[in-house]
Amino acid sequence: MTKPNTRNRSNRTAKSTSSRNPAEANEGWIWGRHAVLAALANPRRESRRLLLTLNAQREIPAGTPFEDAKPASISAVLPDGAVHQGFALRTTAPAAEPLKAVADATHGVLIVLDSVTDPHNVGAVFRSAAAFGARAIILQDRKAPPLFGATAKASVGATETVRHVRVTNIADALIELRKAGRFVIGLSGDGPRPLPDAIREHGGPGLVIVMGAEDKGLRPRVADNCDLLVSIPTTGAIESLNISTAAAIVLYAAFAARSDRKV
Amino acid sequence: MTKPNTRNRSNRTAKSTSSRNPAEANEGWIWGRHAVLAALANPRRESRRLLLTLNAQREIPAGTPFEDAKPASISAVLPDGAVHQGFALRTTAPAAEPLKAVADATHGVLIVLDSVTDPHNVGAVFRSAAAFGARAIILQDRKAPPLFGATAKASVGATETVRHVRVTNIADALIELRKAGRFVIGLSGDGPRPLPDAIREHGGPGLVIVMGAEDKGLRPRVADNCDLLVSIPTTGAIESLNISTAAAIVLYAAFAARSDRKV
Repeated sequence: MTKPNTRNRSNRTAKSTSSRNPAEANEGWIWGRHAVLAALANPRRESRRLLLTLNAQREIPAGTPFEDAKPASISAVLPDGAVHQGFALRTTAPAAEPLKAVADATHGVLIVLDSVTDPHNVGAVFRSAAAFGARAIILQDRKAPPLFGATAKASVGATETVRHVRVTNIADALIELRKAGRFVIGLSGDGPRPLPDAIREHGGPGLVIVMGAEDKGLRPRVADNCDLLVSIPTTGAIESLNISTAAAIVLYAAFAARSDRKV
Repeated sequence: MTKPNTRNRSNRTAKSTSSRNPAEANEGWIWGRHAVLAALANPRRESRRLLLTLNAQREIPAGTPFEDAKPASISAVLPDGAVHQGFALRTTAPAAEPLKAVADATHGVLIVLDSVTDPHNVGAVFRSAAAFGARAIILQDRKAPPLFGATAKASVGATETVRHVRVTNIADALIELRKAGRFVIGLSGDGPRPLPDAIREHGGPGLVIVMGAEDKGLRPRVADNCDLLVSIPTTGAIESLNISTAAAIVLYAAFAARSDRKV
């Protein structure tokens, strides 16, 4: 079933079957039409293998090397239940940016995810960051999911366009961003300042928005290093908003406020 | 494994094994700790069977009839992969309200879902409706998912507290709501009026927000019966927002505007 491929695949095949190879940590599968097409168009990724069904092959740019595959053989290399639509790409993770590349307050809104580990939530935050023009997403190096699989799929291509930064210590990163002149708001269910007020006062391009896990919220040292703790006004009828919903609301509010100022 | 039960179960057991019984259409399983506890507390539902593991039994109100069950036997009655946390409830659907009960413009914001069929999205819209105080959600009778399973789980209990209306024809329902003095905005990627302006001008308790499926948007006759087509301002970097994300943003914007006016 394997079509002749324009590149030498032997090395790549060896890699993808040896899951103990340390280089593997930086490689993974992406699946689904939109996610794979976006990843192929991302110059910051390096493709290792591309498996495509006959229908999928019509949709990729001419000259892209690929392997002809049946749906079942694509499913076999992916996690159970992955909806691949005939597209699977094994690829490297896009390189992260250094913190100092985004630190300057003129560079645009930043999102910081503290202990957010669910791939669907992280992917959805990338999607909202693309929609509302955030400059970058700052992730915790060891806890955030790699930008493959469910994360890439949930982002609907935004993991390919929105830059990210990986830091060892979130609180230290906030200290550095504040030194660079940024204003840091931390989202917290009991934050004293309502979001609309906070955006009116601080919603410029220097804004940094810090969000914690849905159940635990911000860790104490992270909260301590925010300029202001902010809550999204709600009726109180539910315990909390989903993290990706909350991120979308904050990013929308900041984007709408910036758009208003330009008018 | 079945504990003595305080109610006569014979009739209910017969029902739940006969999937051809027409009464079945109005019955379904709910699973997961939060969703089941919320459904048990909802007087508009009638419990048929409650399966609980030993740990789960400690969390239900005293006197609630249940069947003692192992995790695997709970999984066996649920769809593949359902994360039940030791809780499964077979129950009736909560009764829908008639449209005229919510039509009056003083009754609060309404959400209308046109051709939105994904249970996770519908559940997430219920969750946001609870968070931001929408009066009710109007669903298409034949296309909307029943308020069980994945819908109830994604709503994190909000299917039990937010009322819903089922209508045969969405466009006809919009005509009735406008006659009752409501203002109807339809969300559309190319809607000419930006959301913040629309909320400033029309964001009172008489607002009706109509949302279509993510890929197809509003159907023509539904769009024709809106007072105004509105878009959420974005950078344009992604094709569309997820339907539940868009709903959360619109509901937040309307809620924040109402809160501001009260100050």
